[in-house]
Amino acid sequence: MTVGPCEGSDENALAHTPRPPYVAVIFTSRLRDNDPDYELTARKMVALARSQPGFLGIESARETLGITVSYWSDEDAARSWKQVYEHLGAQYLGKTRWYEEYRVRIATIVRDYGADKLSDT
Amino acid sequence: MTVGPCEGSDENALAHTPRPPYVAVIFTSRLRDNDPDYELTARKMVALARSQPGFLGIESARETLGITVSYWSDEDAARSWKQVYEHLGAQYLGKTRWYEEYRVRIATIVRDYGADKLSDT
Repeated sequence: MTVGPCEGSDENALAHTPRPPYVAVIFTSRLRDNDPDYELTARKMVALARSQPGFLGIESARETLGITVSYWSDEDAARSWKQVYEHLGAQYLGKTRWYEEYRVRIATIVRDYGADKLSDT
Repeated sequence: MTVGPCEGSDENALAHTPRPPYVAVIFTSRLRDNDPDYELTARKMVALARSQPGFLGIESARETLGITVSYWSDEDAARSWKQVYEHLGAQYLGKTRWYEEYRVRIATIVRDYGADKLSDT
């Protein structure tokens, strides 16, 4: 028996979410100028999100457009994350300094399918 | 009065979706080796998706992880897109050649908010 790394902690891995239903927060954005503080704060927020109650996983990619999808056990968990003190600060900086435009979409995942490299056994 | 480009046709723009509810298909993947055919097919599929009934918008970004979120008027529209002939071919190539792993999550968008650079007037 091997003990692997904490599931879902690899930022380059797909999120290992449970069977639906659960909640997704789809955050899409375009940045203004490149601000090194942005990247640092974004990383801190991902780490902080992972420690929140009801957190299920997170997936993120950026080219011109940035997409971050975080997964939560239910709407209350997603809503609570939005209100975490440090996250509120980051949201303020995002609105006032970093984002040219952004949109947050809250969704209920109703079904999913796919092919994983690793089985979940 | 100016006439802008077709709304939603810019691949670097955020999708301009209507008021919820509507449907999102969240497709996340990791590629195997770099295959030039992949990029070409991916672009074709985005163009083809845009011409489907019930299509509302699409947002895409790739670093190590790729995330494409397509938005649809309802579940039937999303399901029909999955069954389009050329798309079935691309799905087969994706499974057998391109993707190390992937997941498709079908979701109902229940609410959204954000800040747009351009008003929709």
